[in-house]
Amino acid sequence: MDFAHDARTRALVAQAGAFVESHVLPAEPVLARQLAEAPDAWTFPPVVADLQERARAEGLWNLFLPGEHGAGLTQLQYAPVAEVLGRSMPLGPVATNCAAPDTGNMELLAEFGTPEQRERWLEPLLDARIRSAFCMTEPGVASSDANQIATRIRREGDEWVVTGRKWWSTGAMNPDARLLVVMGLTDPEAPRHRRQSMVLVPRDAPGVRVVRPLTVLGYDDRDHGGHAELAFEDVRVPADAILGGPGDGFAIAQARLGPGRIHHCMRALGTAERALDLVRERAGSRSTFGRPLAERGVVREWAARARIEIESLRLLVLKTAWLMDTVGNKAAMTEIQAIKIAVPSAVQRIVDHAIQLFGAAGLSQDQPLAAMWAGARALRLADGPDEVHLSSLGKAELAPRPATT
Amino acid sequence: MDFAHDARTRALVAQAGAFVESHVLPAEPVLARQLAEAPDAWTFPPVVADLQERARAEGLWNLFLPGEHGAGLTQLQYAPVAEVLGRSMPLGPVATNCAAPDTGNMELLAEFGTPEQRERWLEPLLDARIRSAFCMTEPGVASSDANQIATRIRREGDEWVVTGRKWWSTGAMNPDARLLVVMGLTDPEAPRHRRQSMVLVPRDAPGVRVVRPLTVLGYDDRDHGGHAELAFEDVRVPADAILGGPGDGFAIAQARLGPGRIHHCMRALGTAERALDLVRERAGSRSTFGRPLAERGVVREWAARARIEIESLRLLVLKTAWLMDTVGNKAAMTEIQAIKIAVPSAVQRIVDHAIQLFGAAGLSQDQPLAAMWAGARALRLADGPDEVHLSSLGKAELAPRPATT
Amino acid sequence: MDFAHDARTRALVAQAGAFVESHVLPAEPVLARQLAEAPDAWTFPPVVADLQERARAEGLWNLFLPGEHGAGLTQLQYAPVAEVLGRSMPLGPVATNCAAPDTGNMELLAEFGTPEQRERWLEPLLDARIRSAFCMTEPGVASSDANQIATRIRREGDEWVVTGRKWWSTGAMNPDARLLVVMGLTDPEAPRHRRQSMVLVPRDAPGVRVVRPLTVLGYDDRDHGGHAELAFEDVRVPADAILGGPGDGFAIAQARLGPGRIHHCMRALGTAERALDLVRERAGSRSTFGRPLAERGVVREWAARARIEIESLRLLVLKTAWLMDTVGNKAAMTEIQAIKIAVPSAVQRIVDHAIQLFGAAGLSQDQPLAAMWAGARALRLADGPDEVHLSSLGKAELAPRPATT
Amino acid sequence: MDFAHDARTRALVAQAGAFVESHVLPAEPVLARQLAEAPDAWTFPPVVADLQERARAEGLWNLFLPGEHGAGLTQLQYAPVAEVLGRSMPLGPVATNCAAPDTGNMELLAEFGTPEQRERWLEPLLDARIRSAFCMTEPGVASSDANQIATRIRREGDEWVVTGRKWWSTGAMNPDARLLVVMGLTDPEAPRHRRQSMVLVPRDAPGVRVVRPLTVLGYDDRDHGGHAELAFEDVRVPADAILGGPGDGFAIAQARLGPGRIHHCMRALGTAERALDLVRERAGSRSTFGRPLAERGVVREWAARARIEIESLRLLVLKTAWLMDTVGNKAAMTEIQAIKIAVPSAVQRIVDHAIQLFGAAGLSQDQPLAAMWAGARALRLADGPDEVHLSSLGKAELAPRPATT
Repeated sequence: MDFAHDARTRALVAQAGAFVESHVLPAEPVLARQLAEAPDAWTFPPVVADLQERARAEGLWNLFLPGEHGAGLTQLQYAPVAEVLGRSMPLGPVATNCAAPDTGNMELLAEFGTPEQRERWLEPLLDARIRSAFCMTEPGVASSDANQIATRIRREGDEWVVTGRKWWSTGAMNPDARLLVVMGLTDPEAPRHRRQSMVLVPRDAPGVRVVRPLTVLGYDDRDHGGHAELAFEDVRVPADAILGGPGDGFAIAQARLGPGRIHHCMRALGTAERALDLVRERAGSRSTFGRPLAERGVVREWAARARIEIESLRLLVLKTAWLMDTVGNKAAMTEIQAIKIAVPSAVQRIVDHAIQLFGAAGLSQDQPLAAMWAGARALRLADGPDEVHLSSLGKAELAPRPATT
Repeated sequence: MDFAHDARTRALVAQAGAFVESHVLPAEPVLARQLAEAPDAWTFPPVVADLQERARAEGLWNLFLPGEHGAGLTQLQYAPVAEVLGRSMPLGPVATNCAAPDTGNMELLAEFGTPEQRERWLEPLLDARIRSAFCMTEPGVASSDANQIATRIRREGDEWVVTGRKWWSTGAMNPDARLLVVMGLTDPEAPRHRRQSMVLVPRDAPGVRVVRPLTVLGYDDRDHGGHAELAFEDVRVPADAILGGPGDGFAIAQARLGPGRIHHCMRALGTAERALDLVRERAGSRSTFGRPLAERGVVREWAARARIEIESLRLLVLKTAWLMDTVGNKAAMTEIQAIKIAVPSAVQRIVDHAIQLFGAAGLSQDQPLAAMWAGARALRLADGPDEVHLSSLGKAELAPRPATT
Repeated sequence: MDFAHDARTRALVAQAGAFVESHVLPAEPVLARQLAEAPDAWTFPPVVADLQERARAEGLWNLFLPGEHGAGLTQLQYAPVAEVLGRSMPLGPVATNCAAPDTGNMELLAEFGTPEQRERWLEPLLDARIRSAFCMTEPGVASSDANQIATRIRREGDEWVVTGRKWWSTGAMNPDARLLVVMGLTDPEAPRHRRQSMVLVPRDAPGVRVVRPLTVLGYDDRDHGGHAELAFEDVRVPADAILGGPGDGFAIAQARLGPGRIHHCMRALGTAERALDLVRERAGSRSTFGRPLAERGVVREWAARARIEIESLRLLVLKTAWLMDTVGNKAAMTEIQAIKIAVPSAVQRIVDHAIQLFGAAGLSQDQPLAAMWAGARALRLADGPDEVHLSSLGKAELAPRPATT
Repeated sequence: MDFAHDARTRALVAQAGAFVESHVLPAEPVLARQLAEAPDAWTFPPVVADLQERARAEGLWNLFLPGEHGAGLTQLQYAPVAEVLGRSMPLGPVATNCAAPDTGNMELLAEFGTPEQRERWLEPLLDARIRSAFCMTEPGVASSDANQIATRIRREGDEWVVTGRKWWSTGAMNPDARLLVVMGLTDPEAPRHRRQSMVLVPRDAPGVRVVRPLTVLGYDDRDHGGHAELAFEDVRVPADAILGGPGDGFAIAQARLGPGRIHHCMRALGTAERALDLVRERAGSRSTFGRPLAERGVVREWAARARIEIESLRLLVLKTAWLMDTVGNKAAMTEIQAIKIAVPSAVQRIVDHAIQLFGAAGLSQDQPLAAMWAGARALRLADGPDEVHLSSLGKAELAPRPATT
């Protein structure tokens, strides 16, 4: 057992950390200004491309992607880098082409895509020439229960015809999100986990309709391309637009979830560290009733509990990454569920305390805390609400064990 | 001891409840539409005036105001009415001219205003012909510590000259908020609690500058007239624009806080009841993995704990109202602090669980929950963060007691 | 609505408070000494009779019992008196003949007993000449589910024959507990809630065997007569030893629970107030690292939160009492469940913080805190675990409501 | 970074695990019986020596002690073994001669003892021929503040004279605890951390008086030799009975704390795993209202949260061990404080839920849960209350950081 990162990881963390401090954090107010100046635009403001150019030049690019198409890092190597990028959720991941949902879509294309699919979609995504969205959740059904997905993908001749409605398609308000990865029902009669398939749908295909943007706790998340409700009205794509084969949808979705969740968690821990930095700075510079906030017992307790939660959960995330690398995503299921449950609520709590320390300013646009809070809160529902995972994890924990425990 | 409301209260609660169900709740989507159609406006959308007309006709008007100028209810009588109005925070209070911050300003004018001040400002406020704002909190200082207020109000000849900067002036983005009640330093040499005064400043006085709107967790609260940052640049008002006398600012602010806090708490409990209604409806109509949400243990536990918190805290709020009516705001200080601390966080928790039950829809504009959440969260900072009140209440609790406890 | 107690209640609370301060609290070390000197005895130490004599002389006697047989107080009048007695759980209730489980048994005898039963059992109980126990819970079954009760009460000729095993029969280790009220199955074929009956069994009847004492978190509770496991081996009692009639067991048990729970809750609040008194004294007299504990932020927060919980839950208990008095136990079921769930865990938390403040001394026999803690912890299981009540309360809360809420 | 234990560790964990399952757990009821049969004895019941003989024969002996005198394991290697032994707190550690406080005393003697001290005291301790106690905490002072220690150790000729009072000397009720390691004030004028020294005092030295046993939440902990209050009345020991040199007391105490805390935490995690095993068994075999407890949502949530806390905190403990091995106890201070704060309260919560699941049986002597609970609760105060550590950890966290974070 060894708790030290290897040399490559340490070097990348240092490099990414310096990039974030020197270029990304100073760009946040620029982003805010550019967004304010183009109130109706859903494309990325110019500051994103500027940062991307610099990151690519530095080699901080596609670090999330294992294998030949990306930087070739293991999950364990990428995890602390993702944490550093998560210090700036609006810019860190996108600047390095490591932002969801494109990361998950690139993973799928790298793993399951045909050479043609990879050429058409993966290459421009790796180059950040286009963006993409993942269309799974549907309005009116409990999205934590995959069997309730109702969008139909019917075969007609040598085409697939997609009919249905999706929402919470993050990024899809952005017209540059040329690719929509759509999950739907191809065979209602098949065994439970063979009913769904995934097809690659161009956003400009006839019949694709952007219904409206959804807000998350008051935020439209324009910096991420928003969250779209989309209607698919007899949208036709060729037979070879299917990802994997018919019936593979559920398995592909599962494959996507493991890395997605661990990346979310790592970035969220970076958010928490950023919040703690803000707390440290504020508590050291503000006084009330004649005493610095840093001397207040409750503030110290918040800081201490935050440190404990971050340290223990970071280790659990890293171990999860190590398990995914060594025994695979499936064998790491308990740990993936554990971090999915524990990290977002811990980060939410840490940010909540930070807001409380900042007073009303913490609620406002003057600090990144309110947006951080909304992000952490939303993670408690992304990829299934905590309660579904708690129930599943608890069920596994309560299952009878072989005699030799 | 008697836990039954008197007949007048019961009648008013029933009437207000029917008004909210029949007219206010159905008007919420109208409000959303009107706000969306006028994206840059800070004045109230027309639906507000429509509801006000109806409420006034029904006699549901100025119920918050004790004494001759208002409906003459005691706090104990008004409290459950305020709760019912709080079921719709965007519309219930304003429809009945019972919305903060106007309520607090009307109370001050009724209690401390000269006949001229009452004629000029109180009457149009009671009529809802104008709106008002309260300008106390300042950027860059810990607003929970009144002695840090830095805005200067200097006497020059027969004028007061106001110089300084305020923020979180709720409602002040609305041009109809003609009156700004401004607190500032008139005598830095006076004893601690005699340094501040309050002056009545017309929003259109030369030197008043609206700097910008602030957001609360992503919301601009246009339906409340927003939250403004204001600059006062040598703003001159006549000598008789002072409220009370020089040095009375602190005492007047204190007088304003008691009723303000109890009204906040009552409305927040109404919000919690509304959230529970939404939970009941959803839990009864949604199923996951083959079982209705209403049968899930965790959902039942949420509902049970919500009921317990609402019932116990409502009683504490009502007792506080009764103490204010019978022994006065000062003698009710412990209870006022207690509800100020306990109610908003309980409501936040209840709404948080409701969001979790609704899934991503709960975060979106499709449900009132996200806005409710932001409102409850903000209350934990309004009129001082919870931690300041906890410390003060704890200090009082730990003070030595006379031998005969 | 009126939050002031009536004159009789105020007088009784003052009198009981003075009695507790002057006589009961000083007797606690005497009790400890007498218990230590008779390590194997389960009868009450002499200090109990001394206090009882004094209490009876003062008229502080059988205050819990409404109607002609007792003091005739309403639940609302008795509640604050019970709280004061709860300041000393080892002595306050028993000194005034207001201790469980005798209180519940006296209530049953007064309400359901025949004149003969009342003469034989109620009169000596009212006089504190004997004690009693209530035998419902059984080993090996989930006692929260009354239908699992397996003790059989068979009719043979003009006798009832009791066979089964009971545990957690509080008080039954005390040989003075002459009366055992035993619940058992008389008709397995009857409708669910008509299967059980209750019989009055003398502790010295042939076939009654005291199996062993049970401990509660390390305490044997000898001052309460302990908690016994009892075997009933073909115990025969005459036909007229049944309480009510055959099949009435479930209904009688329900009738017993309402007042039992509210009394538990009131006493527990008295325990919490006592803990807060100890905290106040300690925090005011101890310093660490040069500062009094009373100035520590976390201690203040504990005290503040304790005050808030006590005040709000006390009101809920009082309202519950008022409902029981005005609309009956059944209509007060939601509130009874609410306080049953909320009060013990709040008191446990308050006492836990007090222990933390006292350091290791708080865990030891030098302070009453450890025993208080065990008592509050046990209440979370007495009369059914919190979780059963949460589920039931939540279910009721989630049930559809009529349209006019 | 590598999360796999090395081969020696894996082998030892398997061996110790088998020993605990096959010999230690079955011995627990034997221990209970032997304790009950000798109600006044403080020496260890015979079952302890039986287990020790077997453990020594298996080589499961003194595993806690690094270096030549013990098994030579690193902290990282010992940690998971300690966890397994902690599954039975009454017997696992003592059976393998790895029980506090002897472990800490042996560490001190091995590190700071002279050859003569090691021969006299360390050798019989390593052999389990004698036991020992550590006398630091004092009645009437805040023991978390070392500067309040008042026991005097005066030099007179070639003797040290010890005068003072100690309590919470765990194990010292046992007459076999021949050695008392006593901390006291040798030079009140020295710099703060050079005032204290430690001397080795035979328990049978004239002037040593065992005042009384203390209880912990109702438990006398006779299986651990209890917790003694001791008076030192002019106790004389020779000059060479000092450990280290004069003034070294504070430093030696600090050296003792690091390993002590990590061992406490590891064992406590073993306790938590044992509790979870009990939960799993109970939840799988009990039903209420027709459904197995294992299917209840709240039980699943408890199990899931327990698993998450155990996994994340275990990693933090292991990392702490690794830091102690690689950079030393001082550099691991943040982590040591973090686990000291986080582990006991997590274990307390897990055991509390287990008790709730078992109902009243969980409170009784029939299950190990109540004693586990008391042990975990006491750990929140052992070596300083959580609040002191939270404050210290928070202060460090809030200290300004160099620019390059």
